[in-house]
Amino acid sequence: MKVGIIGASGYSGELLVKLLLAHPHVTLAAVTSRSQVGKALSQVIPALRGFDKGLKFVDSDAAALSKSDIDLFFLALPHGAAAEFAKVLVAAGKRVIDLSADFRIADLATYERYYGKHHAPELLTQARFVLPELTPTGWKNDVKLVAAPGCYPTSILVPLVPLLSAGVVSREHIVANSYSGVSGAGKKVDEMYLYVERAESIKAYGLVKHRHLAEIEEQIALRTGTPAIIQFNPHLAPMRRGIATTITVPAAADGTIESLYAAWHSAYAGRSFVQAIPSGETPDTAHVVGTNRVDMSAVFDPRTKNFVITSVVDNVVKGASGQAVQIMNLWFGFSETAGLV
Amino acid sequence: MKVGIIGASGYSGELLVKLLLAHPHVTLAAVTSRSQVGKALSQVIPALRGFDKGLKFVDSDAAALSKSDIDLFFLALPHGAAAEFAKVLVAAGKRVIDLSADFRIADLATYERYYGKHHAPELLTQARFVLPELTPTGWKNDVKLVAAPGCYPTSILVPLVPLLSAGVVSREHIVANSYSGVSGAGKKVDEMYLYVERAESIKAYGLVKHRHLAEIEEQIALRTGTPAIIQFNPHLAPMRRGIATTITVPAAADGTIESLYAAWHSAYAGRSFVQAIPSGETPDTAHVVGTNRVDMSAVFDPRTKNFVITSVVDNVVKGASGQAVQIMNLWFGFSETAGLV
Amino acid sequence: MKVGIIGASGYSGELLVKLLLAHPHVTLAAVTSRSQVGKALSQVIPALRGFDKGLKFVDSDAAALSKSDIDLFFLALPHGAAAEFAKVLVAAGKRVIDLSADFRIADLATYERYYGKHHAPELLTQARFVLPELTPTGWKNDVKLVAAPGCYPTSILVPLVPLLSAGVVSREHIVANSYSGVSGAGKKVDEMYLYVERAESIKAYGLVKHRHLAEIEEQIALRTGTPAIIQFNPHLAPMRRGIATTITVPAAADGTIESLYAAWHSAYAGRSFVQAIPSGETPDTAHVVGTNRVDMSAVFDPRTKNFVITSVVDNVVKGASGQAVQIMNLWFGFSETAGLV
Amino acid sequence: MKVGIIGASGYSGELLVKLLLAHPHVTLAAVTSRSQVGKALSQVIPALRGFDKGLKFVDSDAAALSKSDIDLFFLALPHGAAAEFAKVLVAAGKRVIDLSADFRIADLATYERYYGKHHAPELLTQARFVLPELTPTGWKNDVKLVAAPGCYPTSILVPLVPLLSAGVVSREHIVANSYSGVSGAGKKVDEMYLYVERAESIKAYGLVKHRHLAEIEEQIALRTGTPAIIQFNPHLAPMRRGIATTITVPAAADGTIESLYAAWHSAYAGRSFVQAIPSGETPDTAHVVGTNRVDMSAVFDPRTKNFVITSVVDNVVKGASGQAVQIMNLWFGFSETAGLV
Repeated sequence: MKVGIIGASGYSGELLVKLLLAHPHVTLAAVTSRSQVGKALSQVIPALRGFDKGLKFVDSDAAALSKSDIDLFFLALPHGAAAEFAKVLVAAGKRVIDLSADFRIADLATYERYYGKHHAPELLTQARFVLPELTPTGWKNDVKLVAAPGCYPTSILVPLVPLLSAGVVSREHIVANSYSGVSGAGKKVDEMYLYVERAESIKAYGLVKHRHLAEIEEQIALRTGTPAIIQFNPHLAPMRRGIATTITVPAAADGTIESLYAAWHSAYAGRSFVQAIPSGETPDTAHVVGTNRVDMSAVFDPRTKNFVITSVVDNVVKGASGQAVQIMNLWFGFSETAGLV
Repeated sequence: MKVGIIGASGYSGELLVKLLLAHPHVTLAAVTSRSQVGKALSQVIPALRGFDKGLKFVDSDAAALSKSDIDLFFLALPHGAAAEFAKVLVAAGKRVIDLSADFRIADLATYERYYGKHHAPELLTQARFVLPELTPTGWKNDVKLVAAPGCYPTSILVPLVPLLSAGVVSREHIVANSYSGVSGAGKKVDEMYLYVERAESIKAYGLVKHRHLAEIEEQIALRTGTPAIIQFNPHLAPMRRGIATTITVPAAADGTIESLYAAWHSAYAGRSFVQAIPSGETPDTAHVVGTNRVDMSAVFDPRTKNFVITSVVDNVVKGASGQAVQIMNLWFGFSETAGLV
Repeated sequence: MKVGIIGASGYSGELLVKLLLAHPHVTLAAVTSRSQVGKALSQVIPALRGFDKGLKFVDSDAAALSKSDIDLFFLALPHGAAAEFAKVLVAAGKRVIDLSADFRIADLATYERYYGKHHAPELLTQARFVLPELTPTGWKNDVKLVAAPGCYPTSILVPLVPLLSAGVVSREHIVANSYSGVSGAGKKVDEMYLYVERAESIKAYGLVKHRHLAEIEEQIALRTGTPAIIQFNPHLAPMRRGIATTITVPAAADGTIESLYAAWHSAYAGRSFVQAIPSGETPDTAHVVGTNRVDMSAVFDPRTKNFVITSVVDNVVKGASGQAVQIMNLWFGFSETAGLV
Repeated sequence: MKVGIIGASGYSGELLVKLLLAHPHVTLAAVTSRSQVGKALSQVIPALRGFDKGLKFVDSDAAALSKSDIDLFFLALPHGAAAEFAKVLVAAGKRVIDLSADFRIADLATYERYYGKHHAPELLTQARFVLPELTPTGWKNDVKLVAAPGCYPTSILVPLVPLLSAGVVSREHIVANSYSGVSGAGKKVDEMYLYVERAESIKAYGLVKHRHLAEIEEQIALRTGTPAIIQFNPHLAPMRRGIATTITVPAAADGTIESLYAAWHSAYAGRSFVQAIPSGETPDTAHVVGTNRVDMSAVFDPRTKNFVITSVVDNVVKGASGQAVQIMNLWFGFSETAGLV
């Protein structure tokens, strides 16, 4: 099976290239970039020296690509641009996994409230947000176009959705504080992201209406049947990769730490990429960086009657490219963990 | 005026040495350490090479020190040990500023619930917790023994107390997430604090009953007249110094962002070391590291009706040694900012 | 084919576990540790949660292991201890790849000058130092016991040996400055390796007779036919992994940048794990961390008539565990790059 | 005495502002910036919140400033721009300390070979490169315009010049490897200086003809009477501030470690900002960051007959703004250490 990556100059694109080059069941047949056409992959991604299989960047020409023999395309493009490519590729019968926000939001009005005008609203009905451990499995046959989840939403939805579904926690007073490595901002060349500015520094940003709220709250409503409003506070932390999320949520009247873990174990039985670790131990971003996992744990605070839940992911792997590969594995019937750890 | 430091081998002790050596109004007359007796200060604290004024470490002998002509002692010792020294020095008529937890808690039972047996409970009535911007000014004449506040409490009490006092915020559902640089753990030689373990890593710890809760909640009750229970979630972040605290608290029925800032401006008018920055800007630990400041801001979230408050301090300066020097400045009638920035 | 790892609690041991668990051609059948017996791998190495294939640590019992059906053992032990295990395993007919220094030095007197008494000198004739790109291929059939090279030596020998052999560079005035990430010190719990001490800090150490000199100079003599004395200056740098080595060496009378690159291309044709990059570009540790590569380049300085050569490796991969896997691949006839990138 | 700073938006300018605001003997009367006119200092330099004494940025208008009552100007501008301002200010009788390269090189041809056209060559005879511990003291009365040294040159000249002067070391085969924190590149907004690119990364750059060679070699010739050619290899290291330089130099025929230290002690007797630490200990950038010191030590290698000398400085303090303040202190008769540590 042949796959292609459209737009591979950012951090997610680079990692997709690495994962797909090493994947046991697919052939990376095309990698595109408007600015790097003709260059060897390893010229642009030096970490691939000796291991780029001779591939060169080709132009991001949607029409040409739609006529190729490539079965599946990954879009690692800014939102807006992704929709334009998806339109052409889906029309040509290609399957598409989009890493941008363009098809993460089912409700057009919500999308436009957070992101502005949508460039392919007609595709929304054919698209599906797939967080593999949460999305009901039927999606595999239904769709042509899959939206891979955002990094913050993955770190919040994975621990929270089963608890809301099981009624273990309150739907009110949910507070999620997330701390992201700087790669979360992409390869944006801005004074704010200079080494000297970010090393040894933590700051909040994007308060109080970060774009990822749109998919967090829509997914909670869709997956649990009832809306919830989340206080989501994102921050930048002095590390390259990783997200650490700490969620405080009141226990439901009959919610206990045992029922919380029972809800997790029930939701994630047999899922290697979600690990509920014992209450009292806390997950560490360093343990998941480079992996496609979510590690999470919870503790009950008898003074406040809250659960404090901590979860960690690698924003570029489970938060982006690794999850996209996991989606491909499931979609095409490969082992869920093929090419991933 | 002569001052002494008892126990100067940790990070707070080192900084105290630097601040007091450079202070315009006092003479650092003795620095003690059981393990370093006879060594030049700069042998143990290489950052002081050429600037240690020829001082050598002397033994931590409370009896001998209590007979010296030193007016004021700073205790930079573990809790428990501090109480032992305070007993002897206070009995000899010396003034003492204690950086440990031993005299931060007025209520003995609370102290012993969090820290175990107290070694000088008879001193509790003569001691006072002094967070200069919050403690009513009368303390200067009343006391012989001052407890300098902890680092996390400083980052939480400074923004929160005036808002609770003014009734701008709820007393319920208060969630404080704090992220501390690794120096917050002191110079503890443990695998957990190795460079390789902590670089590029965030993790929660001490959930759900961190010792600093004792002073946070006691001070809230004392300063605002009513208790509040805080959900306090401490974390380790990959930086040497700095604490970033993000507090989520429901707005009171008539609490607005304007009334919040008004409460802050009223409480901290003329206080250089507390800076309320405009709503919409967020404080950054990098801006306060090396300074004795608290920078803080707040934003109202119309979706959740919460305020999100962020504050930053240098855990070793405003969170420890700088605040101790500020206390000295006020106690002895120097300019509050003497020897500090 | 079954493999075992003896001593897996350090950074090299951990990486070996990961590489061998994921290796396409071998089964990791035993992992030992005196202190962790009975624990699941993922309890001790949390990065493996969900991916430890149910393995538990067993005791480091050489006699028992020598009777098992395991074909190959990796020793990830301190020097001295490694020799003790090698003795028993080799006597039982097992093949052994040792990551310690015990069998890196062919000359016993040299070993004992740098490391003290050798615990299995009788094995020296059966052992071989194998740096796959430099050691003549005959070793595969000759030996029972392979010493995997040290990290610094790998970063120095790979660029230097072909140039000395080809007579492109002088044998005098060779200066190698190396900067290592902190994992190079292993998981040693010492104040020097605390996060607060090492972050934002560079310092030299081990001047002027670092133990790695023994294997650097012996290999130069063995591989190039003539001794050379190296000025080797190791340093600690504020990063977790990676070594950056900069070698200054006078050009030989007829040495040109073209002849230098020709020597490299001739020595390393077809070797994916050694990448000579164009003169004028410089390698970056970030490009090789996580890979088994050496990236290197050189430039001629017409003012000094020196070549300045820079090379980078991941100290734990090509400098330890990755290279050990590469040795296994070659020894057992697998693809050289199997299980590695 | 009133001082002004022209161009204060870079890292050196920011530090100059801090040092001069806190200086006991001068009043900072003007801070200019083309892009920030009218803003409070603390809006642009948030670390100064509460401590900017109400100062606002004024326009960088050389003519207007030359008519002010300010006695001394610091130029923290790019080279080229500095010369233009110096011309106007010196003509108006002002004293000037320039932190750029414009007046560091006495020889015009050398300047233009490294930097291109000089914009005020007529001032070269009135200017003086002053590295306070090395420049003969007569300069104080001779000059109107002082060039503060570069960061790398400071770390190399301070240890090396006395040894060359005393004949303790060879003039040949001198190799200086320097590793600089990222602030050495200034606040340049370029992909190369992004956090994600520089964290956990070391790489060489600027091989083999870095601009700082011009002043290093000219100063060696001027100060020691004979030229020497230096192999200077600069690198970027993952830290914000600090330079670690390691110099390898053959011992002269009768050069011993004792004579080396004797030369240092003789050259730097009574100079607080240069600290020769014992052979066998090595300086650490972390010990000098935030200070105006050079720490250095040396060791003799009996195998190679080289001295290995290591020196550390804070590139922004002793390597730039601190040294400029030290120059001011000496020029105006203040204590050399006033306002510095």
